[in-house]
Formats: sequence, structure tokens, C-alpha cells
Amino acid sequence: MFSGDVVQISEITRSDFEAFWPAFKEVVFAQETYAFDPEIDFETAYNLWCLSPQKAYVIKENGLILGSYYIKANASGPSSHISNCGFMVSAKSRGKGVARKLCLHSQQVAIELGFTAMQFNSVVSTNDVAIKLWEKLGYEIIGTIPNAYKHKKQGLVDSFIMHKQLRT
Amino acid sequence: MFSGDVVQISEITRSDFEAFWPAFKEVVFAQETYAFDPEIDFETAYNLWCLSPQKAYVIKENGLILGSYYIKANASGPSSHISNCGFMVSAKSRGKGVARKLCLHSQQVAIELGFTAMQFNSVVSTNDVAIKLWEKLGYEIIGTIPNAYKHKKQGLVDSFIMHKQLRT
Repeated sequence: MFSGDVVQISEITRSDFEAFWPAFKEVVFAQETYAFDPEIDFETAYNLWCLSPQKAYVIKENGLILGSYYIKANASGPSSHISNCGFMVSAKSRGKGVARKLCLHSQQVAIELGFTAMQFNSVVSTNDVAIKLWEKLGYEIIGTIPNAYKHKKQGLVDSFIMHKQLRT
Repeated sequence: MFSGDVVQISEITRSDFEAFWPAFKEVVFAQETYAFDPEIDFETAYNLWCLSPQKAYVIKENGLILGSYYIKANASGPSSHISNCGFMVSAKSRGKGVARKLCLHSQQVAIELGFTAMQFNSVVSTNDVAIKLWEKLGYEIIGTIPNAYKHKKQGLVDSFIMHKQLRT
């Protein structure tokens, strides 16, 4: 995987997010994985994904953006030691291990930022590929929210809350 | 309870929140129930509690503020049917059924706003009074976040995610 290619993860810039925007819109519009407004506009998305979080990154292969993630504290004060990330891979770049690469990177960044755990608040229960990957990487389902997500094709489905202790 | 007294729940104003601010600060500073920065300043708190949410209310007895709550969507787009509330009762007003009254009110408001469920993302596991009340009112623990909360007196304790279906 990626052999011979130049794959790089770097902090996202506004022009990176502009380049990623069609892929982002496609994922959100599909309404199969993300709990974002499917009609979200660029500035709102840029703020949500790149500016509000503590950091956001892109992964590029020979300059082409394959995916992105953000990292932030999942809550404040007495719960600020738990991080939260959102990962997004463009439809074209699936099945190449991009999400795995991003998640491993995010865990390193989380530890560098002082977080001790990572929590995902809304993993749609029908998103088998994501769930299997997160489980393989050590995340556990710690809660199930009944009928949490209006899946465009499957109707109301549950969402999972997943969690991993990164260090003590 | 409350017999003969004039108890009213109304939408919060800035001057209501100014009056409630010492009680709010006390609760947050105690670091026993809320995952807010204990050093939070007035404007940040006002924005967080009163402006960002969809609505926020105060409960007053003869003009004195006993407590407050906010209501907002817990997520966007395909998950925007689940509401989230935060309830706060001033230390002086505990044991009078204030939280119960606020919660019953919030459930009505949630339904009027079109929500079908309510979710609490961080109920500190040592907060017995709250947990018992929410369970009595039909909320279920749907998840446990290990070591989620740095309790000022008890150290790292778990938090619960609680959920109630309000209507189908």
C-alpha cells in the first residue's frame, strides 16, 4: 500500500479544505455516516471541521487529498482529557487503508496534546467498515443510542459510542 | 412543594443569567457534576448556556432564581431529532423538586420543538441524586464512559450516557 507514492499527513489549510470540499459534501449528502446537515455550506463546514477543533489534518498522495480528520477535546474542564476525532475519506480513496493511517496518526497527536483517551460519539451502526476498523485498532463500543441516525437508505438505525484508552 | 409560592418557568434573559451566575459558578467550580472549565468566565458561560442552545429557561420562586436549563439538538442532520439538555439547580434550592420540574418542562419543550428523544452525554456516575431522578423519569443508562470525569473529591470516575424516547 502506498509503495512508491508520496503519502503525507499535514495540518489542513483553507485551500486544502477547498480542494477536499466536493468529497466532504458527497459524504455528508449521502447521509450514511455523518450527523451533519446534508445542506451544510462551505463556511459552516470549514468552521466545524478545521477552525473549531484543536487541530485538523489532511492526507495527500502525490498532492491529491485522500482524506482528513479533526481532533478536539470531547468535553471541557473535568472531562477535557478525552479527545474526539472525526475521520473522512473521499469516496475514491476507500479500501486503501487511509482511515487506518489517519487514526494511527490521530492517536499520536492526541497523546502529544495531552489526551489520555479517544471517544467517538456517533458511529452509525450500519457503518461496518468503520466499526471493524475501530475495533481492530482497540476501540470498544461503550454505548448504543437507539434510533439515533436517519440513514438515507435504511431509515432509523442505532449509533454506537466508541472509546479507547490511549494511555493512563 | 411550592404551595402558596409563585413558581414560574420562563425563557432566560441576560439579566436572569447575571442573577444566576454566582450559583452557576459555584456548581462548575465544585467539579462534581459539570464538564465545564471551572475557571469559565461570564461571557463564555452565557454563550454556552443561553445563546448557543436552541432555548434556555429559568425557574423562579417569587422572583428568585432556583435553577436553569438549556435545550438544543444533540447532533445535526440525520441525528437532529435527539435533543440534549443541561439542568442546573442552585445549591440553596436542592431537595425541593426543582430538577424534576425543569426536566418535565424540558420534555414538553422538546416535543414542541419536534424532537423525539432526549440524551444526556455526561452524567457523572457519582451523582446519585441526578441518576435516580432521571431513571424515575424514564431515562436509561445506554453507555458508560470509563474514567471520564476528574471529580474534585473522588478523582477519576465514570460518566453515564442517558437517553429517553419521548415519542415515536
